[in-house]
Amino acid sequence: MLRCAGWAALAVLGSLELSSPARADEGMWPFNHLPKATLKKKYDFDASDAWIGHVRRSSIRLSVGCSGSFVSGTGLTLTNHHCAQDCLSRLSTPASDLLKHGFYAKTAGEERSCPGYAIQQLGEITDVTARVQQATRGLEGEAFHRAFKAESARIEKECTTSEQLSCEVVSLYHGGLYELYQYRRYSDVRLVFAPEVDAAAFGGDPDNFNFPRYDIDYSFLRAYEGGKPVSTPDHLAWASTPLKPNDLSFVSGNPGSTERLRTIAELEYLRDHELVEELISLAQYRGFLNEYAERGAEARRVASEELFQVENGYKALRGEHEALLEPVFFRRLTEREQQLRSRVNGDATWKAKYGSAWSNIAQAQERAAAMADELGWIEGSFRPLWAKTALFSWAKTLVRGAAERPKKNEERLEEFSDARLPRVEQRLFAQRPLNQAFEIAKLSFGLSGLRERLGTDHPFVKKVLGKASPAELASALIKGSGLQQVEERKRLWQGGQAAIAASKDRMIQLALAIDAEGRAVRSRYENEVASVLTKNSELVARARFDVYGMNSYPDATFSPRLSVGSVRGWRENGKWVPAFTTIGGAFERATGRAPFALPKSWLDHQKELALDTPLNLVSDNDIVGGNSGSPLLNRQGELAGLIFDGNIHSLGGSYGFDIARNRAVAVDARAILYSLDAIYGAQRISAELTPNSKQ
Amino acid sequence: MLRCAGWAALAVLGSLELSSPARADEGMWPFNHLPKATLKKKYDFDASDAWIGHVRRSSIRLSVGCSGSFVSGTGLTLTNHHCAQDCLSRLSTPASDLLKHGFYAKTAGEERSCPGYAIQQLGEITDVTARVQQATRGLEGEAFHRAFKAESARIEKECTTSEQLSCEVVSLYHGGLYELYQYRRYSDVRLVFAPEVDAAAFGGDPDNFNFPRYDIDYSFLRAYEGGKPVSTPDHLAWASTPLKPNDLSFVSGNPGSTERLRTIAELEYLRDHELVEELISLAQYRGFLNEYAERGAEARRVASEELFQVENGYKALRGEHEALLEPVFFRRLTEREQQLRSRVNGDATWKAKYGSAWSNIAQAQERAAAMADELGWIEGSFRPLWAKTALFSWAKTLVRGAAERPKKNEERLEEFSDARLPRVEQRLFAQRPLNQAFEIAKLSFGLSGLRERLGTDHPFVKKVLGKASPAELASALIKGSGLQQVEERKRLWQGGQAAIAASKDRMIQLALAIDAEGRAVRSRYENEVASVLTKNSELVARARFDVYGMNSYPDATFSPRLSVGSVRGWRENGKWVPAFTTIGGAFERATGRAPFALPKSWLDHQKELALDTPLNLVSDNDIVGGNSGSPLLNRQGELAGLIFDGNIHSLGGSYGFDIARNRAVAVDARAILYSLDAIYGAQRISAELTPNSKQ
Repeated sequence: MLRCAGWAALAVLGSLELSSPARADEGMWPFNHLPKATLKKKYDFDASDAWIGHVRRSSIRLSVGCSGSFVSGTGLTLTNHHCAQDCLSRLSTPASDLLKHGFYAKTAGEERSCPGYAIQQLGEITDVTARVQQATRGLEGEAFHRAFKAESARIEKECTTSEQLSCEVVSLYHGGLYELYQYRRYSDVRLVFAPEVDAAAFGGDPDNFNFPRYDIDYSFLRAYEGGKPVSTPDHLAWASTPLKPNDLSFVSGNPGSTERLRTIAELEYLRDHELVEELISLAQYRGFLNEYAERGAEARRVASEELFQVENGYKALRGEHEALLEPVFFRRLTEREQQLRSRVNGDATWKAKYGSAWSNIAQAQERAAAMADELGWIEGSFRPLWAKTALFSWAKTLVRGAAERPKKNEERLEEFSDARLPRVEQRLFAQRPLNQAFEIAKLSFGLSGLRERLGTDHPFVKKVLGKASPAELASALIKGSGLQQVEERKRLWQGGQAAIAASKDRMIQLALAIDAEGRAVRSRYENEVASVLTKNSELVARARFDVYGMNSYPDATFSPRLSVGSVRGWRENGKWVPAFTTIGGAFERATGRAPFALPKSWLDHQKELALDTPLNLVSDNDIVGGNSGSPLLNRQGELAGLIFDGNIHSLGGSYGFDIARNRAVAVDARAILYSLDAIYGAQRISAELTPNSKQ
Repeated sequence: MLRCAGWAALAVLGSLELSSPARADEGMWPFNHLPKATLKKKYDFDASDAWIGHVRRSSIRLSVGCSGSFVSGTGLTLTNHHCAQDCLSRLSTPASDLLKHGFYAKTAGEERSCPGYAIQQLGEITDVTARVQQATRGLEGEAFHRAFKAESARIEKECTTSEQLSCEVVSLYHGGLYELYQYRRYSDVRLVFAPEVDAAAFGGDPDNFNFPRYDIDYSFLRAYEGGKPVSTPDHLAWASTPLKPNDLSFVSGNPGSTERLRTIAELEYLRDHELVEELISLAQYRGFLNEYAERGAEARRVASEELFQVENGYKALRGEHEALLEPVFFRRLTEREQQLRSRVNGDATWKAKYGSAWSNIAQAQERAAAMADELGWIEGSFRPLWAKTALFSWAKTLVRGAAERPKKNEERLEEFSDARLPRVEQRLFAQRPLNQAFEIAKLSFGLSGLRERLGTDHPFVKKVLGKASPAELASALIKGSGLQQVEERKRLWQGGQAAIAASKDRMIQLALAIDAEGRAVRSRYENEVASVLTKNSELVARARFDVYGMNSYPDATFSPRLSVGSVRGWRENGKWVPAFTTIGGAFERATGRAPFALPKSWLDHQKELALDTPLNLVSDNDIVGGNSGSPLLNRQGELAGLIFDGNIHSLGGSYGFDIARNRAVAVDARAILYSLDAIYGAQRISAELTPNSKQ
């Protein structure tokens, strides 16, 4: 599945770059940089400002790393089931398992708040390139990083003129273009409907990233404000004509990140070190989680959401790793870089301006490799297994927040800038039920990993563990913390540094004790690696502009993009894989055993169902993780499907687009409407989706 | 630790090659090809035939993938504790945990048989190069493989003139030299003494492959025949003068395998694919095993030996992988190959004879990659997770044995040749207590892996799983099999094909059902890959002979070798690591928490112990996995230590020897004798070791 927050995103260090010369068939285009001429010429499609604006305002970004769309005038939001899993899991109890049984608010009053969820809708876009480049001109290393961070914080703060707004400086065509995105933010998001996980994720991990597929991976949320559903005049109409093979199709969503224009030095490091480390970490964690679930029914319930994410991330990273190991593919990337570099070196001016960028990046990459383990395990941004318990994340946020908030906005760690504090607070104060045994087991697993990777005799390991075993320490920390209470977190947040210093909470004390080490390794990374990558990737980006011009799309940045393609199958080992599956296919594939067991609701209705109803489909739209929940649109801009996955070849999409085999996987809009009516009796929802039809 | 059977060895596909020009400081030398002149010149050491013969006959090979030595005239054998773990584990019960509590046979009558163990002592060596090369001359592919296998089987059978002998054709300097090794075989091996695992493996996985170190990783076994200890006139005397820094030292043992002369194509495949796959598999299995042990005390006991092996293999493979990713190291290997190839191509005769060998190997490697998953998961020789239960291995041996034994010796699968049948039978009929819950959990884990790697829709997966879930099928197979009874295994073995065909045993039925698929993928591999590698590696080997002459050592083959070095520490990050540790150091490192908890016997005696007694030491002898249990000898050929590990840099030893940092780790002989007396009161053993001293 294509969710972007979490594992898949963790593999990404460093920064993004400008795209190479555009091809008509690929690309994740910013709405304000669409290739209108190509669309007209190739598809006879007029991308009018009205069409573009409507689709953009109907599309949303979800705080859990997903995309979605408004589908009614009163804030009804369509996204994937797997994007609602965090909410379903938080609202579940041992007695009421919403993942397993699904959820349907039969009346408006039964819609339930999703803790920590927020919806963002993109509004204004402003070009701030000149301002950012001016602020960093002539600087290097720490000075560069500080100036860049301070100017971004200033720009974002000026833009955030109300609590309902949220602003971000987005680096497109790396450093070629900085744009300020202003989002309308809705932080009261409620659960409206979700089917059973057995139907939403039918086929489970074995079928994930595969096709043919048979999943109703959808859910409905709703944006509220002031206790009422928000008014959303821009929303997608349900498709009056469904998509059929070869139809033009659009995907409007937030692809998380791509690495299509990284230098070869960066890709080699990813391929040989970083992805391998991640895969090994995830594989071990997966083995642990699978067996933890065998402890009993409650253990299985609490572990299931995490296992789901881990398996998804693991499979995605395997696909990415395999793509980079493909010799022809990698050779193509290498040749492309050589071509650009030889063009640059062939021109004296260009050579002087850009010529050393690649070797600077390669050197920064070596420094990154040398500090990777300490950065990952001590500061924990990239490989935070040992900090996988929310209790530690909260403690760290509280300790850091208390120290950062008194500082001037421009001097803080960027995650505590004024523009970002509302999100920090929402996440910190969201309800999240924890199972103590599970938290102890995860933390113990993580502390063993810390000792293993840094070594028993590393001073940081000695400081954390002392003479305790990982299991002992994990137990003492979890049992000695009261942070699972939202009230306690609020008290410490509001109490600031005095409250933190006085706290006897074991987790707070740990976060405080290791804060200096974390800050030290982080600023070493920022000054010696990140700033060099930012600066030199910008040079590579400008070199591309100079050599090839600007008719290209930027790497993905988890911000709104439009992808253009068409509905079609592909040839796999000489055999054509058709573009559509049907509900009947799900019954054929079912074995009655998880993950191939359909839920009771399906089996109960099997006889009366129209088995030829289209269920899933594929298109050659260019998407990646983060696109989960994106609407699949027809020529009219109507909702014809819901993206929830890519096929196995789509995983190479991080590094390049292969139109012959890379496919996006969607739920057909007909299956959504049909299942709401015929299986779940959720007429309140289906009527809201199709207000003009007679039900 | 340096044991070779099991995981580490599984990473090795294909065949071995001839060494490059010799350096004085490295090498695992066959006893009949020692560099006597170098020894004389560099160390002023006369390697007399008497010295060589005595050391060789005193050294043994252990069937569990280890080395060892006779240390008394009545078959007393010194090896590592971790080499006795399989025995300790098989002899343990829930009520009596020999791993945890150790074992001491206070009288001769209390020595207990180790199921499945055998000791081999090398006798005659015969050059059979001409015979083997004659048999395969001019052949390729399947014909080559068949002829090679048949001639080896004939030679081995002719040599095996009694049940006490065991013969092997060993390929040295790959295909440059074939030698027939005749071993005296002792298949009644008994357990005499073992300390507690907490003292033997103090520091556990965190300290494994590290130094300074504090482990008494030793155990004593004894060879029996006809119910009596065997007479071993050749045995090592306990060192009268201990080793001190810079002393000349020898290691006599059986290094398992090295890849120092593989082609770059083979090493790239190992680095990018095979080792990564193994690491991911092992990491996941390790996560599973660690969490399985949390099910309870009995679960921890039954999982502990497997976990120990998995963690050891995992850490070893990580080190090997990191060595191959080291750019300077890999460039050196690449340049060496380029040098040889350019010498070959510079001579028309050589070019015609050898020039295409490298590209033939590279092509075979591509075919190997394409069939790796099916070979591993269907035939299960390399990645047999799903077959990790002994019940399936027995079933496969029974099914295959019944089909193979009626054939002519030369036409059988090689593991069922007449020369090897005694070992097959010993292993098959050895007692091995199984815990049903653990077997089900392992098999379920493995069946999930099978489905994941080959895919839900692979015909083999469908055939094995049908509509069952991995957990269901695992449970049905384990509960539906009676093969845990030795008598049942004997009945089926003796009953042959009729008994197999009539058996209702679920595991036998599975092994029978998938036998054809396994044979098919295996013979595809043998004919299209293995035979090409064998033939072309032989060409590369001969090219080396022609270009560089023959003053070099062959890659390791788990056969007796002698390594020459000296006792010394090394410089790590600018700091000198001294060569010796003491018993006092163990008490300083102890935290009281596993794996840093010393057993009660040590704590009880702490006050009266001479804490400055040397405990462990390092030398720059060139060793690898398989050398576990090797004696460390002084100039006089006396036993001065017991190899049990290498430092972290030794793991690159698979691909090249780095004398600056690669170190062998041993228990000092003084610590063995001292702990027997002062901690364990095992005077019966210590007296037998030092018959001429007054105790």
